[in-house]
Amino acid sequence: MRTVKLTVEYDGTDFVGWQVQPNGRSVQQVIEQALETMLKERTPVVGAGRTDAGVHAAAQVCSLRTERTVPLKAFVMGLNSLLPPDVAVRAAEEMPEGFHARHSAGGKRYVYRISNRPTRSPLLRRTHWEVYRPLDVGAMREAARHFLGEHDFAAFRAADCPAKTTRRVMRRFDVEERDGSIAITVEATAFLKQMVRNLVGTLVEVGMGKRAPDSIRLLLLEGDRTKAGPTAPPQGLTMDEVFYGGR
Amino acid sequence: MRTVKLTVEYDGTDFVGWQVQPNGRSVQQVIEQALETMLKERTPVVGAGRTDAGVHAAAQVCSLRTERTVPLKAFVMGLNSLLPPDVAVRAAEEMPEGFHARHSAGGKRYVYRISNRPTRSPLLRRTHWEVYRPLDVGAMREAARHFLGEHDFAAFRAADCPAKTTRRVMRRFDVEERDGSIAITVEATAFLKQMVRNLVGTLVEVGMGKRAPDSIRLLLLEGDRTKAGPTAPPQGLTMDEVFYGGR
Repeated sequence: MRTVKLTVEYDGTDFVGWQVQPNGRSVQQVIEQALETMLKERTPVVGAGRTDAGVHAAAQVCSLRTERTVPLKAFVMGLNSLLPPDVAVRAAEEMPEGFHARHSAGGKRYVYRISNRPTRSPLLRRTHWEVYRPLDVGAMREAARHFLGEHDFAAFRAADCPAKTTRRVMRRFDVEERDGSIAITVEATAFLKQMVRNLVGTLVEVGMGKRAPDSIRLLLLEGDRTKAGPTAPPQGLTMDEVFYGGR
Repeated sequence: MRTVKLTVEYDGTDFVGWQVQPNGRSVQQVIEQALETMLKERTPVVGAGRTDAGVHAAAQVCSLRTERTVPLKAFVMGLNSLLPPDVAVRAAEEMPEGFHARHSAGGKRYVYRISNRPTRSPLLRRTHWEVYRPLDVGAMREAARHFLGEHDFAAFRAADCPAKTTRRVMRRFDVEERDGSIAITVEATAFLKQMVRNLVGTLVEVGMGKRAPDSIRLLLLEGDRTKAGPTAPPQGLTMDEVFYGGR
């Protein structure tokens, strides 16, 4: 039995998310359909993480197991000719038995993008949260420092988040501004459901002057979701990399 | 009579181009419709340049004349509430009598974007030309230097280009690569029809090793369109800025 790792890019705009759902078009479903056409048997894939409806991926990872002996490059070129324009396989690798896209992952990086101009942006509307009020990026950066390290992120999880523990290790949290766009890059061992979007929603309130940068410390200590900011919209979020092995 | 200058952004994907056409949805047409709704009279606009079908603009400029006394900010907020999601007004300015978006323009900057990876990119497909073969960016940069300064660009104009003279002054021609994307930034006093796309198509042949960087000199001297490269596809091109006054 072979284990294959696929690195997948998608424009999440027209998907209900990664995961197969009873209604609607999911990324997992279109990949499994293309695999079934190519391998001539039903072949389930497991994703490294479940992106929500409208969330993008530059490099989501999924794994599959198959007895078929098709060459590795068919998983790139062959699948790409079968997949719709908004999904593509960027790479395929043969992995040792036991590799699992979710269980083997040692960390993930997400990028959240904000367009911070007084008017809406037709060119950025599919990939950015459009915030018209000017944001204080210095204050957001100051607030972001409090997220670094190991913390209980209970205040930043979705109401229906199934995780047993809410402690996570945040390894990176950068806030960069360029030409009216803000990119927030976060890297952690693992994330709770909607955690990145809840962190960003809170950070934007700091940027608007609605909360002080050091109010983040109390939010982390209290763990009360109702005291943190709103969930930032999905289109600004992109899953950027999944780490395996030493990283 | 007031003269108003509008700076406009649009996602060109679903337009037949800037210019009103007998069939199809043009940017000029949707702006004139929104203006007519707001000002309650037909108000033609003149664009700084005519972008082709599928070409984007971060900052196209158009001008209009009106007797209406609506406040300037209505041309931003009011029009943006009437325009479709793929067009927006970024700024409105009151200009002296005689200002004309095309005749008064002293130069333009365009950016052409290429995704240069072995596989297609769902996230870049609307704004980049996807070239799968690896390009030699150093050779492209070397070739680009030959375009700088005043030249006869006859070899790079469209067959139906109406310009009387084909001499233009190229003020900037940068080729930058980052994470598998190449951005080509060009600035000139004026451009011939499809000139940027023809320059880029030729440069990509240099990047593929099909022509030598210094072959550009002969192309400029001979002025033969059939000897230059193909027209690069429209979705990679964005009108980035129009210069007025001293610039």
